[in-house]
Amino acid sequence: MSAYELYCFKESGNAYKAALMLELTGTAWTPVWVDFFNGATRTPEYREDLNEMGEVPVLVGNGVQLTQTGLILDYLAKETGRFGGRDEAQERDVLRWILFDNHKLTAYTATYRFMTNFMKGADKPVTDFLGQRMHGAFKVLNAHLEGQDFAAGDELTIADISMCGYLFYPDEFGVSWETSYPAIGAWLDRIKAQKGWQHPYDILPAS
Amino acid sequence: MSAYELYCFKESGNAYKAALMLELTGTAWTPVWVDFFNGATRTPEYREDLNEMGEVPVLVGNGVQLTQTGLILDYLAKETGRFGGRDEAQERDVLRWILFDNHKLTAYTATYRFMTNFMKGADKPVTDFLGQRMHGAFKVLNAHLEGQDFAAGDELTIADISMCGYLFYPDEFGVSWETSYPAIGAWLDRIKAQKGWQHPYDILPAS
Repeated sequence: MSAYELYCFKESGNAYKAALMLELTGTAWTPVWVDFFNGATRTPEYREDLNEMGEVPVLVGNGVQLTQTGLILDYLAKETGRFGGRDEAQERDVLRWILFDNHKLTAYTATYRFMTNFMKGADKPVTDFLGQRMHGAFKVLNAHLEGQDFAAGDELTIADISMCGYLFYPDEFGVSWETSYPAIGAWLDRIKAQKGWQHPYDILPAS
Repeated sequence: MSAYELYCFKESGNAYKAALMLELTGTAWTPVWVDFFNGATRTPEYREDLNEMGEVPVLVGNGVQLTQTGLILDYLAKETGRFGGRDEAQERDVLRWILFDNHKLTAYTATYRFMTNFMKGADKPVTDFLGQRMHGAFKVLNAHLEGQDFAAGDELTIADISMCGYLFYPDEFGVSWETSYPAIGAWLDRIKAQKGWQHPYDILPAS
């Protein structure tokens, strides 16, 4: 398999999901830093050449150019034969939690974190709303993880890699896993124990 | 194939996506109305028996019980051999747009519509924020559809069925497709022309 380039930046939890999958599968990759905070993902050139959706990450290599993190994870699972689920029932469960992540967990967590940490002058009613929705998603996930070790069963899959993407900096959204969502905290510890795991701020380029 | 039951209610665009797929593939199904507006999806019993995520739709039948609309669409595409994409490249494109729908299009459109139509006393800064994000997603989709007839190529796939779910009542979020997003309007007309298409308010039960 040829090496991949991943368009990414340090603060992006979505880019982290893809980078973590590349690390955990031992796949060769090179980061290409994107100047998100100066608008690089929203230029006409970026939309034309890299991603019409105006987002990171973008994975390039092996004859493909892919956007949408959930798709990148699914693609790498198929290419490497790792973390995609062992049968059709588990594959369905994997997709179910990846969709939940996109719709409810990352959607609110990433936006709440962005507005409270990286943006000046966010409206308090808006961050209150996002925070409330974020905690709603945490509650669902915590209850789910009280019953099993990983999202789709008893071993790590791309559903876990997707959902953990924004959860390794709980201080940035004012949450203590231990106090409020202990099953999430224990699950994150199980992910940290995987061979090849690194924290997002150690795996992604800052410039 | 045995008949399916779909847990749903009239106002849910997500339930509509599943119902439309069932109709377009000629699959036998029965609606089971869920009293969402009186909290039926958020009871402990509903979470225990039907969907721990506290949402509709839920598809039951043929030996499975499935939640998350994107998964239900993917499952039905595999079962019927329809609308899933003709090769791996198109399948990737289908998943890409289903994820975009979950993360950006339905996420903001459904929440904006819910708060401005069905909820009393929503904060204006919150609905302004959601409306702005919703229009961001419309812009991406409209630009994409200027170049091709359907989301993932020149024929209908479950990516279209997913993304159109909340777009057949533009008056409920104050948009005119013709004026503001003509490529979306033309694409919705192409979906309406499919054999078996019905409007969400005609396909889903009100009680």
